[in-house]
Formats: sequence, structure tokens, C-alpha cells
Amino acid sequence: MTTNFESLLAKVHEIDDLNKALALLSWDREANMPVAGTAVRVQQMTTLSRLTHMMFTSDEMGELIEAGADEVVGADFESNDASLIRLLRRNYADARKLPPDFVARVSRISGHAHKAWVQAREENDFASYQPWLEQIVELGQEKAELYGYEDEKYDALLDQYEHGMKTAEVRAIFAALKDRLVPLRQAIQGRGVEVDDSLLYQSFDVGKQKEFARYIAPKVGYDLSRGHIGTVVHPFASSFSRDDSRITTRWYPDFLSPSLFGTLHESGHAIYEQGTHPDLARTPLARGTSLGVHESQSRMMENIVGRSLGFWRAHFPHLQSLFPEQLGEHKVEGFYRAINKVQPAFIRVEADELSYNFHIILRFELEQALMNGQLLVKDVPEAWNEKMETLLGVVPPTDSEGCLQDVHWSKPMFGYFPTYALGNLYAAQFYETAVAQEPDIGEEMAGGKTETLLVWLREHIHQHGRKFTPRELVQRVTGRPLGYEAFVRYATAKFSEIYEL
Amino acid sequence: MTTNFESLLAKVHEIDDLNKALALLSWDREANMPVAGTAVRVQQMTTLSRLTHMMFTSDEMGELIEAGADEVVGADFESNDASLIRLLRRNYADARKLPPDFVARVSRISGHAHKAWVQAREENDFASYQPWLEQIVELGQEKAELYGYEDEKYDALLDQYEHGMKTAEVRAIFAALKDRLVPLRQAIQGRGVEVDDSLLYQSFDVGKQKEFARYIAPKVGYDLSRGHIGTVVHPFASSFSRDDSRITTRWYPDFLSPSLFGTLHESGHAIYEQGTHPDLARTPLARGTSLGVHESQSRMMENIVGRSLGFWRAHFPHLQSLFPEQLGEHKVEGFYRAINKVQPAFIRVEADELSYNFHIILRFELEQALMNGQLLVKDVPEAWNEKMETLLGVVPPTDSEGCLQDVHWSKPMFGYFPTYALGNLYAAQFYETAVAQEPDIGEEMAGGKTETLLVWLREHIHQHGRKFTPRELVQRVTGRPLGYEAFVRYATAKFSEIYEL
Repeated sequence: MTTNFESLLAKVHEIDDLNKALALLSWDREANMPVAGTAVRVQQMTTLSRLTHMMFTSDEMGELIEAGADEVVGADFESNDASLIRLLRRNYADARKLPPDFVARVSRISGHAHKAWVQAREENDFASYQPWLEQIVELGQEKAELYGYEDEKYDALLDQYEHGMKTAEVRAIFAALKDRLVPLRQAIQGRGVEVDDSLLYQSFDVGKQKEFARYIAPKVGYDLSRGHIGTVVHPFASSFSRDDSRITTRWYPDFLSPSLFGTLHESGHAIYEQGTHPDLARTPLARGTSLGVHESQSRMMENIVGRSLGFWRAHFPHLQSLFPEQLGEHKVEGFYRAINKVQPAFIRVEADELSYNFHIILRFELEQALMNGQLLVKDVPEAWNEKMETLLGVVPPTDSEGCLQDVHWSKPMFGYFPTYALGNLYAAQFYETAVAQEPDIGEEMAGGKTETLLVWLREHIHQHGRKFTPRELVQRVTGRPLGYEAFVRYATAKFSEIYEL
Repeated sequence: MTTNFESLLAKVHEIDDLNKALALLSWDREANMPVAGTAVRVQQMTTLSRLTHMMFTSDEMGELIEAGADEVVGADFESNDASLIRLLRRNYADARKLPPDFVARVSRISGHAHKAWVQAREENDFASYQPWLEQIVELGQEKAELYGYEDEKYDALLDQYEHGMKTAEVRAIFAALKDRLVPLRQAIQGRGVEVDDSLLYQSFDVGKQKEFARYIAPKVGYDLSRGHIGTVVHPFASSFSRDDSRITTRWYPDFLSPSLFGTLHESGHAIYEQGTHPDLARTPLARGTSLGVHESQSRMMENIVGRSLGFWRAHFPHLQSLFPEQLGEHKVEGFYRAINKVQPAFIRVEADELSYNFHIILRFELEQALMNGQLLVKDVPEAWNEKMETLLGVVPPTDSEGCLQDVHWSKPMFGYFPTYALGNLYAAQFYETAVAQEPDIGEEMAGGKTETLLVWLREHIHQHGRKFTPRELVQRVTGRPLGYEAFVRYATAKFSEIYEL
């Protein structure tokens, strides 16, 4: 006989399968689809989005969850069954707050807005995108109201990406971070050391860049036999199961960093999904628990591992062998300094580890203002440039390099950006804990190896998927709540050495 | 107020969107997915297949079709509305014959069988595939019983791919074809002329082959701005809308023909879908009307256009410029003779235009025997090789080059193969008619141009999609039912000239 919990699981699997089909429609749109296919693809995605929403928010589903829950009352908090019930209850309550026609509207409008954004960015034409962004902002505000909030509108949006985190809390952490990082950046600039990173800006054959990506991704633990590297405008990772967890990269023929660190970054994301426990398959537990924690894995591989001297002592020779003309004469120390150059720049995804946080703070502040109505869409380019001046001391020459650079605002993904900087903080805190618990990690890292680190990450973070909230996870793994301190220690030590402070 | 017909259309669009998502899951599995992802992907496809089947076969759907039909009673036979009702009624009646658990079983078993087939083919290990093929054959027999038939079991299967065609009819056409083509082949072999095709078997850089594919595909009318060329083991075409109609190709580093004629062949398929009328979008009318007619479009581009002297007079110079070392010294006449060399070989998809028909007759006969129980799966390799000997005079050295070469039997796609040879016959009959109606076509073709031919095809065939059955279409377009005569005239003229008969 089928138990209620088994019936619930069958339904959960069905909905997960549909969600993965939807994810594939989305991945494919960016990685393969001809632009001409957009109109019909948007309709296809709208249909699947509407169907899964309808299935998951039905009264029947609510009854199924509660009937299943009754059967596993008393199960360990850490068990898969209890964790699934917790997550389903939360997701169900949230999803019921969004009426089907709102969901369909979001899918339809964001489909068109995304197309408009791609074109606006290509043609540096914010005006053509403005009416779409206005609709997107309204959708964001509407969403916040539908979810509801106690303190401020932005809380409702942030909660969707970093469950349990409050805007006030992020504001406090970011303020403390600014207090520590601004003096560090000033010290670096005051030192007057000019790092030469011209070696990164040479002609690099794209085919060979791809070859190197396939070499380097497994070095940070990405299992390519369960993965795939695609090409897109704005890189992302996407998984359709733990055994099909993909990354995408962009390739510049005259600049090495984007493909190099993009690959390492997205590999970090993909590894997280590949490491979820097989028993969680085809359920919403088989994902990273939050965007911030997800970002901690990508940032760890991109920066803590991927911009370390030990890593490149081990792998720079292979890079040199692919590009002997460009890199053959260079020493690994020079390469290491180049990839760690602190330099305010326009593009977030190419920013150094320090500047990156200011990019996020900028977006965090603008988003709050947009949601509260203190900032109008038409004034975004000006506000963007003013904040760039204040925070980073530079002004982008075009909107394409400014407020049009990110994909996020072509969807109502407000509340998403802060998770990037939170990712840096989680990463440092996790890494500090890992090294304290497993001293081998430090030694291995000096030799460019990541084996023990990966075992630790899989054991303490990856396998659990979404069983614990970010707050539960960081407490459980590091013994304390998220703070800014570990990152400040890490960054201070690293850049003090590089810049001889 | 929403009319019944509008409600029907909305439902039809919804189901079409789901079917396209399912098609993408399938396309992606072959073009991108890591093999490790198979297990979960099969589950995902099973879920979508079950859902769409359930939606389309519901009592409610039947009532919706009839309510919609009532509103368009009296509409022209040729109108979109009347054509949609005819097709929906037929598909609905057919689909209701297959119980949901049968459909799920087919999807699940064929998912696994496909994986087993890929491996068996790689490792030349028929035994490992045999148990799967046995299950597939049983599914085929079961399917025939479920659909029902008057004369013979195979009729029920053939009807799914070539609606209205009878096994006896195919048998008669193929017999007449054999009577005419065998003497032609004997005459060619008796002539004792040895065509040198060694120029096709040289080292050809895969990147340049891809570049040439992107050059040549538009020359037969494939609009790449609404298309995509992917890489797979067994090439196919797949479309997700008329504005996203894709082909796949395989690239051999030491043999030019597969990528060259594979690209032209699949382009022919893709053009058909790209040419369907926009008003048919998101309905089952927006496809080729049958596999045979679909194949007529691919065969026309691959053979009638793509293996003509005029075509290569125009495009051989570009091929030479990409491969100066390999082809620079050769004349177009030698290349033309090489690509039209008549030579019995093992692999169907690489066979010349004459031998190809014998490959199909072989499969047609084996399939009938498998379905009638006159042939057991374990005896397939032996039976295959015996028929190869009889029909083509050669015996494949391995099963990988024999009975494991085709993807079709990893799905219960019995009844599919004959449509390939029917495609040759439709193609010749359509082309003969086109030239008679538009004498410019012959002149243009002599100069490697296809513009007028494409306009004619779009006007008479492509735009109609699935509005007419193959029987209706061929009668409407050529004024007579399908016959073998046009193909025999075409082949006799072409090969008599090449082999100086």
C-alpha cells in the first residue's frame, strides 16, 4: 500500500521534473537558442511556470503535505523526511501568496524584458530598456506586498534568496565591512605600488582557453563526467540533477580573466549541486540552501583557492604551455599579483575581491531606493554613476558598462545582489573553520591541491543540500552566526602581503 | 467572451508547449547532456510524457474538441480551423488507444534501451543490448494490438508515421522499385568503371568542416538566424518552433561526406518546419505532415540538389578554399563523381542513392518478421547479415556496422524505416512536378541556385504543415498518388550519365 508520505514524494518528484524542464528551457535559451525563437520560448516557459505553480499551490498539495507530515512526526530534525516537510511547508506558504496570474505575468514580462535588456546592453541604449525596467520594478514592489513584511519592503524580497536574513542585519554587516575595507583599500592605494597586469590583456586563442577551462575546472573539484561547459553572454550555473550540473562561461579573445575566473566561479556552484546527497534527488532539497551559501562555494573556488599563490604554482606551468608566446617569459609571482590587482573598475563580475563588495553595496542601496519609490527608473543611470564615483572613485563611460551590465534586473530579482557579498563572508568563515579543523588543508593548498578541502565541504555543506537554513548551517558548521570578521582577516592578510603594507 | 474554439486553442497551445519542452529534454540529452545524467533525465521525460498524454486523452479534451468543432462546422476543408479539428480528432482517437501506463512504460524502457544501445554500439556487443531489444519488440507488438488493424499487424505501426499508407501498398511499390533498380545497379557494376572517391577520405579539420556547414546550409535555404547546428552521435533535426528549428551533425576528422551530406539532409528537414505558416504556431499542425513527406524534403536537399553537378560547380571552390591541400588539385567533375559513387556499403546513412533503398527494404522486411514473431531478437544479427549479402552483396564485419547502427530500434519505432525510401519517391515526384511548373528551376539548379525551388516548396508543401495527409498532399501537388516512376526516371538519367551506360 502506498503511504501518504510516498504519495507526497511522488507528487514532489513530478513537480521537480517539470521545474527541471523549465530550467532547461531557460538554460537552452541562453546557451543555444537563436534569438528569433524568443517569442515562442517565452510562451513555453510561461506555460510550464503556470502549470508547476498551479500544481504546487493546489489545496490538494497542502493536504498532501500535511498528511505526509503526520506520518513522519517525531522524525529527527536532521532526517531527510523532516527536512523535506519543513521546506515544503515554507515553500507552499510562500507560493500560495503569489496568485497564478501574477506568476504568469512575471514570466511573460521578464521574458520580454530579458530580450530588451540584451539588446539595450549591446546598443548602450538604456532608454529602450527603461519601460521594461519600470514594469519589472512594479512587479518587485507588488511581490513584496504579496509576500508581506514586518519592518521594511525589502525584507520580503531578500527572504526569497537568503531565508531568514533581515535587511537591517545586512545593512549592519555591510557597514562594519565598509569600515574595515575602506581603510584597507586606502592603504593599498597610498602604498603607490603599480601592479602590472598587462599579461592578462593579450591575444588568447578561444579554443585554447576552452581547453584550459576543461583542465582547471576539475582541479577545484568539478566532475566533468557529470557536467558540461557552455557559452553564454552572462555566465551562470544550472543543474538538472546532481549528475548533470552545468556551468557556462564567456570567452574574450584578448582578456584571459573572464574565462579563467568565470570557470572557477561557476565550477564552485556546480560542485555544490554535484555534492548533494543522492537520496535528495528529484526533491527541492537537492540544491544549495541559499544564494549566499551557494555564492560562498563559488567565491571560495574563484578567490580563496583560485587566486592563491599555491594554486598557480601548481597550474601556471600548464597555462604557460598553452600560451607560451604570451606567458612563457612570465613568473608565477607576477601572474599572482596581476590576478589580485586591486583596481576600481566598472564591471562587477570582473572586479577584484575588495572592490567587489562595493559593487554589491551600490546595488543593495539602489534596490532599496527603487523598492521604496525613493528612486525612479529613469534616474537609475545617474544614481548609478554617482554611487560609483562615491564608492569606487570611477564613473563608467557607458550604461552598458554601468547600470545595464547585470542580467538580474531583467527579472524581478531584487534582493538577490546582497547574497553575492554575503557569499564572500560565508566563504571566509567556512574556510577559516575548515583549516582549523583540518590543518592538512593549508598544506595541500600551498601545493595547489584541494582534496581535503573538498571532502570537508562535501561532508559539512554540500551533502545536506537544502536541509538546513543558512542560519542553521553556518551555526552548525562554524559554531557562530555569520560575521564580517573572517573575511576581513583573510583579505587583510592577503593584500597586506601582496602590497607589502 | 471566450468561444469554445478559443478554449480549445488555449488547451492545444498548452499541450504543445509541454511537448516542445519534452522535445528539448530529448534534444539536449543527445546534444549536451553528460551520459551520467541519463537516469534522472529519463524520469523527467517520463513525467512530461505522462502528463501530456493524460491532458490530451482526458474526457474533457474530447469534449473540448467536439465543442470547438461544432463552432467551425462548414469551414473550408483547407482552412486552419477545419484542418486542426481533423488532426485533433485523429490524434485523440489514436492516443486514447494507448493507456497511460503503457505510454509511461514505453518512455521508461526506451530511455534505458537507448543508453544500452549507445554502449552496445560503441563496444560492438549485441548480447548486452538483446534483452532491451526484446522488450522493445514486445512493446511494438503490444502497440499494434492497442491501435488495432484490419489486414496485418504492421499496418497499425506504419500508420503512425505515414498516415493512411498500407503495408501491402509499400510492399508493391518497393517490389516495383526493386525490379527497376536492381538492373540499373547491375548495369553500373557491369560497366566496370571504378570511381575514385579517395579525395573524400583525407584529413579534414573539424573546425573547418563546421565552418563549411554554416556556409552550405543556407545555400539550400536553411535560415540559420532561426536555426542551430549541434553535434551528436546520430544526427537528427528537431524544432521547438518555426523560429527555432535545429539540425545536428557528426564530424569525422578523416571523412568529409557525413558532415557534408548530413548537414544538407537535416537542413532539408529544418527548412520544412521553418516554412510552416506562422498561424499554425503552437499547434500540432506546425510540423511536416508525415515522416515520408518530411524525408522527401531532406532527401531533395541531400541528393537531388546536394549531389548535383550544378550545385557543386557553384560551391566546390569555397570548399577548396577551406581545404586547399586536400582538394585544391581536384576538379569539380571528379568530386561530383566521387559523391555519387555507387558502392554497396554497411552503413545506411552513408549509402549512395541507389543502395539506400535496399537498406530500407532490408529493415522493412526484418521489422515485419519481428512484429509477426517469425524472427526472434536473438537471431537479428544473423538475419541482418544474410539479407545484407542477398540485397547488397556485402556482410558487415561487426554488429556495430550492422544491426546496431540505427537508433530507431532503441525506441519502439517500428514502421518508421519505410518512410525513408518513400521520401526518395516523394522527393522525385515533387521535384519533377516543380520543374514542369517552373522551368526556371532547372536553369537555376544548373547554376547551383535554389531560390525558385524554395519558393515553390514553401508555397505547395511547407506552409501547409500538417493540414493535409500525405495522400491528400501528393495528389494535390502532383495530381496523382505516390509512385516509383519519377524516382526511377531521375535515378536512371543521373547514373546513366555518370556511368556512361
